[in-house]
Amino acid sequence: MFFPKPLLVLLLVLVSRLSASAAPLAKPVAPIQRIDPTFWWVGMKNPKLQLLVHGPDLATSRVSLTSYPGVTLDGFQRLESPNYLLVNLTISPSAQPGNLQLTFIGKQKSTYAYELRARTTPGDKSKVQGISSADFVYLLMPDRFANGDPGNDVVKGNRAPGVARDSMYARHGGDLRGIEQHFDYLKELGVTAIWPTPVVDNNMPKAGYHGYALTDYYAVDPHYGTNEDYVRFVQRAHQQGLKVVHDVVLNHIGSFNYLWLDQPAKDWFHQWPTFTRGNYRNGTVNDPHASSLDRRLFSTTMFDTTMPDPAQENPLMATYLIQNFLWWVEYTGVDGYRVDTYTYSDPTFLMNWGKAILDEYPQLGMFGETWMQEAEGVAQQAFWTRNVFPPVNGFKSNLPGAIDFILRQALLESLTKPAGFAEGVAKLYYAVQGDWMYEDASRNLIFLDNHDVDRVFSVLGEDVRKQKMALAWLLTERGIPQLYYGTEVLMKNFSRPDGLLREDFPGGFPGDARNAFTAAGRTPAQQDVHEFVRRLAQYRKSHPVLHTGQLTHFVPEDGVYTYFRHDQQGHSVLVMLNCGAAAKTVQLSRFAERLKGYTAAQDVLTEAIVPDLRTATVPAYSALIWELR
Amino acid sequence: MFFPKPLLVLLLVLVSRLSASAAPLAKPVAPIQRIDPTFWWVGMKNPKLQLLVHGPDLATSRVSLTSYPGVTLDGFQRLESPNYLLVNLTISPSAQPGNLQLTFIGKQKSTYAYELRARTTPGDKSKVQGISSADFVYLLMPDRFANGDPGNDVVKGNRAPGVARDSMYARHGGDLRGIEQHFDYLKELGVTAIWPTPVVDNNMPKAGYHGYALTDYYAVDPHYGTNEDYVRFVQRAHQQGLKVVHDVVLNHIGSFNYLWLDQPAKDWFHQWPTFTRGNYRNGTVNDPHASSLDRRLFSTTMFDTTMPDPAQENPLMATYLIQNFLWWVEYTGVDGYRVDTYTYSDPTFLMNWGKAILDEYPQLGMFGETWMQEAEGVAQQAFWTRNVFPPVNGFKSNLPGAIDFILRQALLESLTKPAGFAEGVAKLYYAVQGDWMYEDASRNLIFLDNHDVDRVFSVLGEDVRKQKMALAWLLTERGIPQLYYGTEVLMKNFSRPDGLLREDFPGGFPGDARNAFTAAGRTPAQQDVHEFVRRLAQYRKSHPVLHTGQLTHFVPEDGVYTYFRHDQQGHSVLVMLNCGAAAKTVQLSRFAERLKGYTAAQDVLTEAIVPDLRTATVPAYSALIWELR
Repeated sequence: MFFPKPLLVLLLVLVSRLSASAAPLAKPVAPIQRIDPTFWWVGMKNPKLQLLVHGPDLATSRVSLTSYPGVTLDGFQRLESPNYLLVNLTISPSAQPGNLQLTFIGKQKSTYAYELRARTTPGDKSKVQGISSADFVYLLMPDRFANGDPGNDVVKGNRAPGVARDSMYARHGGDLRGIEQHFDYLKELGVTAIWPTPVVDNNMPKAGYHGYALTDYYAVDPHYGTNEDYVRFVQRAHQQGLKVVHDVVLNHIGSFNYLWLDQPAKDWFHQWPTFTRGNYRNGTVNDPHASSLDRRLFSTTMFDTTMPDPAQENPLMATYLIQNFLWWVEYTGVDGYRVDTYTYSDPTFLMNWGKAILDEYPQLGMFGETWMQEAEGVAQQAFWTRNVFPPVNGFKSNLPGAIDFILRQALLESLTKPAGFAEGVAKLYYAVQGDWMYEDASRNLIFLDNHDVDRVFSVLGEDVRKQKMALAWLLTERGIPQLYYGTEVLMKNFSRPDGLLREDFPGGFPGDARNAFTAAGRTPAQQDVHEFVRRLAQYRKSHPVLHTGQLTHFVPEDGVYTYFRHDQQGHSVLVMLNCGAAAKTVQLSRFAERLKGYTAAQDVLTEAIVPDLRTATVPAYSALIWELR
Repeated sequence: MFFPKPLLVLLLVLVSRLSASAAPLAKPVAPIQRIDPTFWWVGMKNPKLQLLVHGPDLATSRVSLTSYPGVTLDGFQRLESPNYLLVNLTISPSAQPGNLQLTFIGKQKSTYAYELRARTTPGDKSKVQGISSADFVYLLMPDRFANGDPGNDVVKGNRAPGVARDSMYARHGGDLRGIEQHFDYLKELGVTAIWPTPVVDNNMPKAGYHGYALTDYYAVDPHYGTNEDYVRFVQRAHQQGLKVVHDVVLNHIGSFNYLWLDQPAKDWFHQWPTFTRGNYRNGTVNDPHASSLDRRLFSTTMFDTTMPDPAQENPLMATYLIQNFLWWVEYTGVDGYRVDTYTYSDPTFLMNWGKAILDEYPQLGMFGETWMQEAEGVAQQAFWTRNVFPPVNGFKSNLPGAIDFILRQALLESLTKPAGFAEGVAKLYYAVQGDWMYEDASRNLIFLDNHDVDRVFSVLGEDVRKQKMALAWLLTERGIPQLYYGTEVLMKNFSRPDGLLREDFPGGFPGDARNAFTAAGRTPAQQDVHEFVRRLAQYRKSHPVLHTGQLTHFVPEDGVYTYFRHDQQGHSVLVMLNCGAAAKTVQLSRFAERLKGYTAAQDVLTEAIVPDLRTATVPAYSALIWELR
């Protein structure tokens, strides 16, 4: 049969529209391998959309958009590689959901039905709830927490397809289903938010289990589940009253990421003639004396041999990244972002990224990995979050909260070094004093340990008294408390190698000898500490004074550090940390300004009534927590 | 002879005017014991003058001023004590020098000829020269440096009249004349400014030698000389090309100060029911979590049992203090103020005081004792000087420079602890990084030791190599270098008791066995270090690149810390500190950005020519200093 050419084109368009409307996401016709973002939404605040189209020898193609009300094709752009095209669209507020028909005519002709969805986050209050000091965050590694679906242990075609639980850096089989199966455990413990280390695809030949070497910006790691599984995971968590923090890596990718294997252009990544290790010195960014070399060695080097460094100062790469992190929020409805290696990214990009995300999702929780050395101090940590400082070298962070490494170091110093005028617990006092530099220090995430630092029980010499004291501090200090999985059951180990910090939660895996998820499976010491966390976290959950109440502290005396959380409604909680090896009886008259109006107290830990407020006795290496009455 | 009453009055006035013009400062007629300021000047920027008049039962007197062109009596004011009156004057710009005739009529009648002098500082460039990074400051204790006038060793009527050189806390006899006799020694050493600990009267029964317990705001300690001797001392120093830093104490006085013994009013001092020791925590001033008690315990307690605390928030006391410190500059022409216990004063007063002094003498050098613990960090030190921060609790320091305790601690850490990623010399690197928080860190005074901290030679384990290294740093780092007397001849000792830090300079006192002021009197090691200081300080003096040149530093590697001082005129000095126990040969290619344009160097210490810039070898615990060519 013969059709005149115009009629043939019309017919093809109609057929393709039919097929597009038939399938929610039409399969790309060769040679288009993928388009990022993989789909988008109508009604986003920023009407601009940059599509990165990938396919062999695609670069010489001309692009057209079949007429779609409210959507215009602004243009398309070749990159250095023959295998990419950038397509720029404007999606006006009037555009409706549907499939855009993009036609690429080059060495061959292809069409692609690009999906525009209806947004769900604006109207659904269960989505993007934010993370605040009312929360208690539980950090876990999905691979190491619980294996709920043995079916995804082996992923065919993956660069490291299987599991090997006896190998520190192999995958162990944990997954999203495993976490879901322990939602009850977490809720019972008083947890309100789960922070899994990154769930995105890490299709790496080695150590993909940790999640920080992402190989696909738009896919969940198949060892944990599918993209849809993750969406359901967030939904189920929300249904259970648990929030989800999504762990994002802006600074680097895995060396098997397709953007690195087939680079759009050399200037999408920082590239050195040979592998050049960075100096890991965030201070070079605001150091008035830094050499140019040191600045570059910090911001533009690969994080490790397997972790290339996106050139975020390249506006095309920047847009790619910003869109990706808008995408995850809209797609999943996660409640917060934890931003990995926050300080290592390009400073201007960081500002633009943060603004774009928070313009769209002002309620999104956000805290960044601002790993600091003690010698860098509060100021340098505050520099990387919202603070009172003017911009330095044009940078002014808009990150709502830091991950408070400085406070952690100070707390550990309190529990491991003798108290002196400026030593031991005095360091904690000084660190908290530094809160004047933050816009709002209560947005900081506070923690005792995480997947990168020595487990706190080991740091504390496996002293259960100190462990409880540290937990008491965690749950009464200003900020958002974060518990690392297993700390509640005394999991231990020092770093070096870091795999030791990431052992499996006992009971999370088929065949585990003990199941610490149940009281029966815990040793007496584990049960003691677990119960301590549970009691205090539940108390904290129902007592907003520990979320938003003002903090007033007193200069430590004789190794005892005393602070109060108190609010305008008359709630007040007294905390005393005795960092010494002997019990202390403290005269309370010194705290008169904060005891005024109260005559008694209830011990939060023992529930005993304290009939008067004359003295308090705190055993060695113990915390006392009193609710004033 | 009989005179009608009006004539008698006229006659008395004429007589008193004649006597006033005959003597520069008329003796007060009983019952007026003193008026502070003891005299004043016409032509001060602030035309207001508050006189504190002291005399038995003076309070009920009425005051009148005999007509004096350009001067008005604004009023007088009774205080709580019967023995004081405040008299407020306005001295207009048109007023001429002369004696004001003040008449006090109360239980008895008195007159007082109050002197108004002509100013000298505005026209005399040798006066109030300021202190800058071009200077090299020598800190000494007048009592312990040299005894130039045995005639003032015993001061009759003084509460501790004599000397006892075998007693750590007695006076040893040093004086202004003794310092003058060693101007040549100081000049030869490369010193450009002398900072004596306070020369003001400390008429205390014990430990008056240290100078920080002033008993008279308007008098030089007679053990050192008279007020006029001090004026001449400053003049002679200026004639010799030496500047003088005057050490001022705003925060406290000695308990034998007449203002404390006979208090104008209780609210001129902070008073607690019983002696209450302060907490020495400057952080309470800007700590958002500080208790009211801790704030008061810092700012409003006596510094020690013998050191009462002026209530600087009392505007009358504040004016008394401000006038006093204007007085000393105008009277003596000193070049700078070192402000003792800067952080302890009332914050609002500090701002007003600083503004008043610098409004009148913008060129006056000024740096404050901002004693910080390492854990408080650069931010807290910067808080107390001109910085980039917004005001906190209404306070924004206008102090030009800090005394850089943080940098000192970091330097000592470099020389006493092994280098690590964040340990040892890395602490120095981090501390210098913190310069972003200062308005201008080059106004900070940098030092290795002083009269309150362990002598550096002891801290460094009496290792001459390290001593020279520390001195090399001192004379090449940004800031105003300060040497403590005797450090150039290896004087040593740890604090506790602090008297050990304040031993006599050998050779400064009659009968001394050795005279370290002369090369012949120095041991070989002393001579070695003395010559090291001399050579480097003289080099520094003639090389402005070490005063104002930009500092660029590189991340320490393998215990070697490298920095450059360089300017727009092509001068550049390379400094390498090898903080390790082994010699290091360093490839210089890493520093290419700062070596560009240079092909050779001269070693500043050995004067050897360095023919190329490929490598540098630095012996263990040594500094290398090259002037690039």
